[in-house]
Amino acid sequence: MNPVEIIGKKRDGIELTREEIRYFIEQFIAGSIPDYQVSAWAMAIYMRGMSREETVELTMALAESGEIIDLSPVLKFAIDKHSSGGVGDKTSLVALPLVVSFGVPVAKMSGRGLSLTGGTLDKMESISGYNVNLSMKEFMDQIDKYGIVLAGQTADLAPADGKLYALRDVTATVSSKPLIASSIMSKKIASGADAVVLDVKAGLGAFMQTVEDAEDLAQIMVDIGKGAGKKVTALISDMNQPLGYAIGNALEVREAIDTLQGTGPADLVEHCIVVAGQMLRLAGISTARDLSDIRERVEEKLSNGEAWEKFRTLVRAQGGDLSQIDQPDTLPRAPVVIEERATRSGYLQTINAREIGFAVLHLGAGRQVKDATIDHAVGAVVHHKVGEYVRKGERLFTIHARDADSADVARSRILNAHVWSERPGMPLFYNTLFSE
Amino acid sequence: MNPVEIIGKKRDGIELTREEIRYFIEQFIAGSIPDYQVSAWAMAIYMRGMSREETVELTMALAESGEIIDLSPVLKFAIDKHSSGGVGDKTSLVALPLVVSFGVPVAKMSGRGLSLTGGTLDKMESISGYNVNLSMKEFMDQIDKYGIVLAGQTADLAPADGKLYALRDVTATVSSKPLIASSIMSKKIASGADAVVLDVKAGLGAFMQTVEDAEDLAQIMVDIGKGAGKKVTALISDMNQPLGYAIGNALEVREAIDTLQGTGPADLVEHCIVVAGQMLRLAGISTARDLSDIRERVEEKLSNGEAWEKFRTLVRAQGGDLSQIDQPDTLPRAPVVIEERATRSGYLQTINAREIGFAVLHLGAGRQVKDATIDHAVGAVVHHKVGEYVRKGERLFTIHARDADSADVARSRILNAHVWSERPGMPLFYNTLFSE
Repeated sequence: MNPVEIIGKKRDGIELTREEIRYFIEQFIAGSIPDYQVSAWAMAIYMRGMSREETVELTMALAESGEIIDLSPVLKFAIDKHSSGGVGDKTSLVALPLVVSFGVPVAKMSGRGLSLTGGTLDKMESISGYNVNLSMKEFMDQIDKYGIVLAGQTADLAPADGKLYALRDVTATVSSKPLIASSIMSKKIASGADAVVLDVKAGLGAFMQTVEDAEDLAQIMVDIGKGAGKKVTALISDMNQPLGYAIGNALEVREAIDTLQGTGPADLVEHCIVVAGQMLRLAGISTARDLSDIRERVEEKLSNGEAWEKFRTLVRAQGGDLSQIDQPDTLPRAPVVIEERATRSGYLQTINAREIGFAVLHLGAGRQVKDATIDHAVGAVVHHKVGEYVRKGERLFTIHARDADSADVARSRILNAHVWSERPGMPLFYNTLFSE
Repeated sequence: MNPVEIIGKKRDGIELTREEIRYFIEQFIAGSIPDYQVSAWAMAIYMRGMSREETVELTMALAESGEIIDLSPVLKFAIDKHSSGGVGDKTSLVALPLVVSFGVPVAKMSGRGLSLTGGTLDKMESISGYNVNLSMKEFMDQIDKYGIVLAGQTADLAPADGKLYALRDVTATVSSKPLIASSIMSKKIASGADAVVLDVKAGLGAFMQTVEDAEDLAQIMVDIGKGAGKKVTALISDMNQPLGYAIGNALEVREAIDTLQGTGPADLVEHCIVVAGQMLRLAGISTARDLSDIRERVEEKLSNGEAWEKFRTLVRAQGGDLSQIDQPDTLPRAPVVIEERATRSGYLQTINAREIGFAVLHLGAGRQVKDATIDHAVGAVVHHKVGEYVRKGERLFTIHARDADSADVARSRILNAHVWSERPGMPLFYNTLFSE
């Protein structure tokens, strides 16, 4: 086989065979196909798209470029979740303990990645002592003993995906749906999942700006799951405004704790119930697509402290300081806290999640470059949701910063992210159950 | 400026600015933009095309990546020609002396490149002692003294083009018209041409398979010429069958000598008259697009030996063995010569130039990889043109090979290249004057 011919086929819109895709990825990882051929190939894929068969093959080739973790010695059925990434998205911190409180074990590996406000691992690391770096044996032992684990990747999962992603990042070939879908699914398959709930975000603060694009991406991933013999459910959820109120690592842990104790923001609570509910459905605990048969029980686990207990179990098992989560005020706090009040009355038409994400990134809560250090304490809390009527003088948002200068920049950016209206406006979409 | 944004713009079909194109090529040559970004960019250009303005900018950026030769100290007006490459194309060997015989000096630099049957430099090197490696001073002195020079590139012409071409060659991005056009024109501009006759081939043995594609390519190059302030005339000529009868370096030199002595094949003679005529028109010797005002005089220069004398001047000036061209039988000869005769009677419908090119490449007349050694002696001579009626037992073609095995492979391939018909068939197009 000849790499130039394979690039040329894709360039001309001809479907690649299983063998051609395998050959390309294998030789890329082996170093025989150089970066400059792979980037031209990725651009051809970006422009021409990929059929479902091609996308499944690419996913499997990426997944099988490294170790495929076998969780079957400790888990009958491994359920995972994945979020396409959003501002204020602390869903895993709530949904995982919630599922586990039903006696369904969950073993989750997270990557760090680049994001505006830190990933799930960064959020958990706000808790003193919480160790995300488990060996494969520690990971397996913990799931066996406690039924819950949330750690970094224990192995070199889908190394071809990492290499390909790094190249896409610098060649303007990131935003291709088949490439995004195969990248996400390859890691889920490599980490041993039997079933996955995909939480695909749409809107200003999401990678997919429209519901249509999010649905397309979700459908591709569901199809890949089918092709790979996995059970996959995809949800499309709103990411025009932040999820919940808190954005920033320790601030989000606090909000997750509130939610696990029954006092979380309504939108976050609802989202966690749906995500956890769909995971429970994949595990066979529910048989209703709309979760009508377990919704009440899920809500109860939040109000009766059972989910919260599972979160404590998780933190304890991984060496985290329990006193810190029992008294959330002892979590990292930023030295500069400024409160912004509304200078007018009106309805909030938009609270631009993307703008808030960038503001919080500027405060130091996320990473602009790989391996950058994250400040767990900084972030922002918005005090309203879109559609609410706010009176002049009410609190609008609070900034937690390491110094006055960065606070000032974030303040003006978040202020601009709030768009006012004289009328209540249209309701936003939320939690469209998509497909499986 | 950011390379990823520039790639992304092109990917999305947005026109790049002059500054963006300059930046991209300058940083590529400086090594700051790596190959993998350039190949993704080239693929985006392949898929999205380029506007005329973009193509002119790219051409100028490539041309100005190295030295721009100034021929003005020795030439009032520098006229060049370029062929897009064909099988049996020995036009330069005839057209250059023809133009010079009118008192119009011609200084031509050729590249070697990869081709099925060797380039112009390879053909000239069939002549013992002919030196294509002149210094810039030798090049200038020769044009000043003799009015004719035909050598390799004396300087590092358009180095960005060489680097970009090498990358396109391995990333399936060669056959993009704006990229081909800018590559060709950048070298013509860098080598100091004030005017260029472009001989664009179309058909089975050419890069452009259809007349429409050849016209498109020609139009782009004419427009680049206009944009760069050069006079450019483009011809479209047939490359379904070989030009003339001889294919292979020394065999083609012999046929060029025949043509310069007034006994060349009709199609080659006509083509050389048109190419030389258009060069003369650009030089102001003719004022008629159809060359009606000089055609007879051009024909005369072939029959009265004046063009032939200029060829001898060229060969002598560059150290070639005059006795060898005066007695063409002393040019390199292959040890194995086999003659194939027609096993049937009929009209020749096709003599597939591409197939014959590959057969002759297999004999050793061309290069499969850069820097490969060429065998000047080998090649083939076809004895007919498309449309001719051939009787059973007549000579069909002759093979000149270094051994019986390679002769056998070439024999069967060239035999298959001859397609028969019961009827005379449609005439082929020839020498459509295109544009300037």
